[in-house]
Amino acid sequence: MSGPNISIYPGSFDPPTNGHLDLIERGARLFHRLIVAILRNDGKTSLFTVAERTEMLCEAVKHLPNVSVESFDGLLIRFAAEKGARVILRGIRAVSDYEYELQMALMNRKLHPEVETVFMLPGEAYSYVSSRLVKEVFRLGGDVGDLVPPNVVERLKAKGRVWEGAAPSK
Amino acid sequence: MSGPNISIYPGSFDPPTNGHLDLIERGARLFHRLIVAILRNDGKTSLFTVAERTEMLCEAVKHLPNVSVESFDGLLIRFAAEKGARVILRGIRAVSDYEYELQMALMNRKLHPEVETVFMLPGEAYSYVSSRLVKEVFRLGGDVGDLVPPNVVERLKAKGRVWEGAAPSK
Amino acid sequence: MSGPNISIYPGSFDPPTNGHLDLIERGARLFHRLIVAILRNDGKTSLFTVAERTEMLCEAVKHLPNVSVESFDGLLIRFAAEKGARVILRGIRAVSDYEYELQMALMNRKLHPEVETVFMLPGEAYSYVSSRLVKEVFRLGGDVGDLVPPNVVERLKAKGRVWEGAAPSK
Amino acid sequence: MSGPNISIYPGSFDPPTNGHLDLIERGARLFHRLIVAILRNDGKTSLFTVAERTEMLCEAVKHLPNVSVESFDGLLIRFAAEKGARVILRGIRAVSDYEYELQMALMNRKLHPEVETVFMLPGEAYSYVSSRLVKEVFRLGGDVGDLVPPNVVERLKAKGRVWEGAAPSK
Amino acid sequence: MSGPNISIYPGSFDPPTNGHLDLIERGARLFHRLIVAILRNDGKTSLFTVAERTEMLCEAVKHLPNVSVESFDGLLIRFAAEKGARVILRGIRAVSDYEYELQMALMNRKLHPEVETVFMLPGEAYSYVSSRLVKEVFRLGGDVGDLVPPNVVERLKAKGRVWEGAAPSK
Amino acid sequence: MSGPNISIYPGSFDPPTNGHLDLIERGARLFHRLIVAILRNDGKTSLFTVAERTEMLCEAVKHLPNVSVESFDGLLIRFAAEKGARVILRGIRAVSDYEYELQMALMNRKLHPEVETVFMLPGEAYSYVSSRLVKEVFRLGGDVGDLVPPNVVERLKAKGRVWEGAAPSK
Repeated sequence: MSGPNISIYPGSFDPPTNGHLDLIERGARLFHRLIVAILRNDGKTSLFTVAERTEMLCEAVKHLPNVSVESFDGLLIRFAAEKGARVILRGIRAVSDYEYELQMALMNRKLHPEVETVFMLPGEAYSYVSSRLVKEVFRLGGDVGDLVPPNVVERLKAKGRVWEGAAPSK
Repeated sequence: MSGPNISIYPGSFDPPTNGHLDLIERGARLFHRLIVAILRNDGKTSLFTVAERTEMLCEAVKHLPNVSVESFDGLLIRFAAEKGARVILRGIRAVSDYEYELQMALMNRKLHPEVETVFMLPGEAYSYVSSRLVKEVFRLGGDVGDLVPPNVVERLKAKGRVWEGAAPSK
Repeated sequence: MSGPNISIYPGSFDPPTNGHLDLIERGARLFHRLIVAILRNDGKTSLFTVAERTEMLCEAVKHLPNVSVESFDGLLIRFAAEKGARVILRGIRAVSDYEYELQMALMNRKLHPEVETVFMLPGEAYSYVSSRLVKEVFRLGGDVGDLVPPNVVERLKAKGRVWEGAAPSK
Repeated sequence: MSGPNISIYPGSFDPPTNGHLDLIERGARLFHRLIVAILRNDGKTSLFTVAERTEMLCEAVKHLPNVSVESFDGLLIRFAAEKGARVILRGIRAVSDYEYELQMALMNRKLHPEVETVFMLPGEAYSYVSSRLVKEVFRLGGDVGDLVPPNVVERLKAKGRVWEGAAPSK
Repeated sequence: MSGPNISIYPGSFDPPTNGHLDLIERGARLFHRLIVAILRNDGKTSLFTVAERTEMLCEAVKHLPNVSVESFDGLLIRFAAEKGARVILRGIRAVSDYEYELQMALMNRKLHPEVETVFMLPGEAYSYVSSRLVKEVFRLGGDVGDLVPPNVVERLKAKGRVWEGAAPSK
Repeated sequence: MSGPNISIYPGSFDPPTNGHLDLIERGARLFHRLIVAILRNDGKTSLFTVAERTEMLCEAVKHLPNVSVESFDGLLIRFAAEKGARVILRGIRAVSDYEYELQMALMNRKLHPEVETVFMLPGEAYSYVSSRLVKEVFRLGGDVGDLVPPNVVERLKAKGRVWEGAAPSK
């Protein structure tokens, strides 16, 4: 290895969960720099704006000096290359995750062979936490205080419990 | 174990299939009471109204004295707790089903640890039957008489073969 | 076996990829006739019209004398039966593909037991190529020259990089 | 449902783990009686005798009045029928577990249709604990105090760390 | 396609099951010739000799004029090439099957690219039947009359219920 | 991150394959040091001695200055801790691999939380290559020149094609 090892942790983070933060902490221990990269305009209706998601993430990672938060448009792999990153970091939980991740990783390798996709396991307490489930549980009146950081709970409450586009089932 | 064992079998049932009924009969043999719980307002366009689905299910389970049909809004696990249920009953077929079911079961356990999710296998003749496939086959002119109970066939015919929102492919 | 062995290779082909063509070539070596069958009106917004997809496929398979291109509405299995086909040919890559394919194959066997679904593996170089990923990569400005035939690249360029309905993520 | 609901929880229990005990406690809350059934003579070399495994399990479940420990030879489904059980209880963790379990459950249903196999999830803290891994970690000098009950730790120590037939890898 | 389409259906067939016969019948309808190929000396202890397995299979397929039974040593793909086969036919049931099958198919394609591996689904009634489970159920005194052809039941009875090397569990 | 990033790539390497070497090269680009760690005495009969495997690996990685080859007994995670490693590197291919790897990774995290398991994808050309398949193909007379490095081919030839314990099927 030569030069600093920069890694990208991409996602929608709508909103960030404790599972995301667990993985960010793990990644920050392994790489010189970790860039949390929020996908702008992913074609899905989002609950939080990119600015809100950036704020929530910045607050949640401010104790990690080698982590920064950015957002990007277009191909992830191109953003990674522009940043000089060698690594795309991804968390994996279920087998179906894993297959989609594999497909993306192979496609990205085809487009930019010098960037590697690296998979890590979130803490097992977070194996069932996803942004979608958090929104769903909150919308239906459940307590999400153990699933997301405190600043995300506050912002969810500020949004209120009624919004569209959060279907409860697969 | 103390007290009666009440279980909830939740779903969209749009429409009920022979696979659903097979599982209801299996569950009715294992638990004191089984509540078939129709999810109202699940964010998806449905073919049948909740009232129609309730009627179809009531007709189909009337030979099972310990089975009742209700509908619910909001968190399933809260509905289960209100009903004094100890068990959420789920059928599993494919591996991808199973993973989503696992995630939901772990989330529900987190929210209400005293309610257990229990999985049972539908009869193998029903391993490929889903409400989505039934609607698709019917819409395209296929015969669904072996896939759903007779009262559902009649109601499908009453709807006619043209409706929107039933995409044929994944 | 008696009589010629006709097989159907169904799909959306929006657009055709090198993975599709690899499988068509493999199928053409095994069966007397192979009909590439484009699903019309699949309920999804498509990038290319059925006419455009037919043209792209016809150009791409013109070196294979026993391959023809058609389109169909309604139940695949009925189309297969009308054509006198004995075989529905499907490519499989990931496990989640496989499960959906299994469910469809069992349903089709129920509806027309005399038509068999047969699975083949695309070349491993194509294991990550799908129409959805091709559109996504192209839309974001990536090079898809290794993923689709040259005539598809041209038509993608003619469409331009801006269109709706091609969400980048799962 | 009529009559008491007896369930069987079968396994090798060589040795019992905290994952097994977690599932026994969950099952004891759902069924009138739960019989932990140790498979005698399963064709594999075991570390503990059936008598030792029975003792360890009896000690570990003595706080659960509706749980008993027995051992059996021959077909599980026949033992279940002899005991008047309606349910075979199984824990599931990984997808590969699940497939083997499904195959066994379908075979058992074929042989005795009136006994149902029911699947429950162990606590997520136990998702990686298996008897095989416990023996392996102990043999190599690792601490298994969080993985098995205290009485099992003692008996493992009494056996010593050297025995044959516990291969470390798949 | 040019020339006759010969396919190989390889396996241990120790003993043949109704699932194997179901697949042989399906394959015999699709290909000009189907060679059932018994693997000699597969490194595992077998219950039946290759001669006994050949006899059981010959009796069971005698109504299928384009099916023959042979045995082979060494690489399957070389045997296939010697026979002029274009196809290796494999049945798939569970996902774990499927992955191993994929690995073998890719390796075989690497060694002999002109032979294709083709997968078909056994009838769903046979989805849980394997030679290993048949031997296990029979050994423990269960009835296997629905799982294997009558001539296999007779030969199992002639062997008696006591033999070594048939472990009941994973 | 502080201090150098040492990673361990453990395995049996009996023998090393091109898939192993592909992963070693990928890992060597990401971490300051990579230790290839051969598991001694894994309870399985091996074809090559630990000394032979060490030699083959040393020859194959001599162009990579930050890679060394060692062997270990006992718990992998303890070996990793002794070496000051922060990372255990694992390649993943199939879903079933992945599940076993996940279980091991969670167990290792439990035993030594400061060491992370990190997963990378081998090149897709190696997705079907395993030590077991290489031995099997070679034993049956197939050409393995594309599957292992040249020095491994030579040593396989020196062993001859007859040895025990290499069963051809699952």
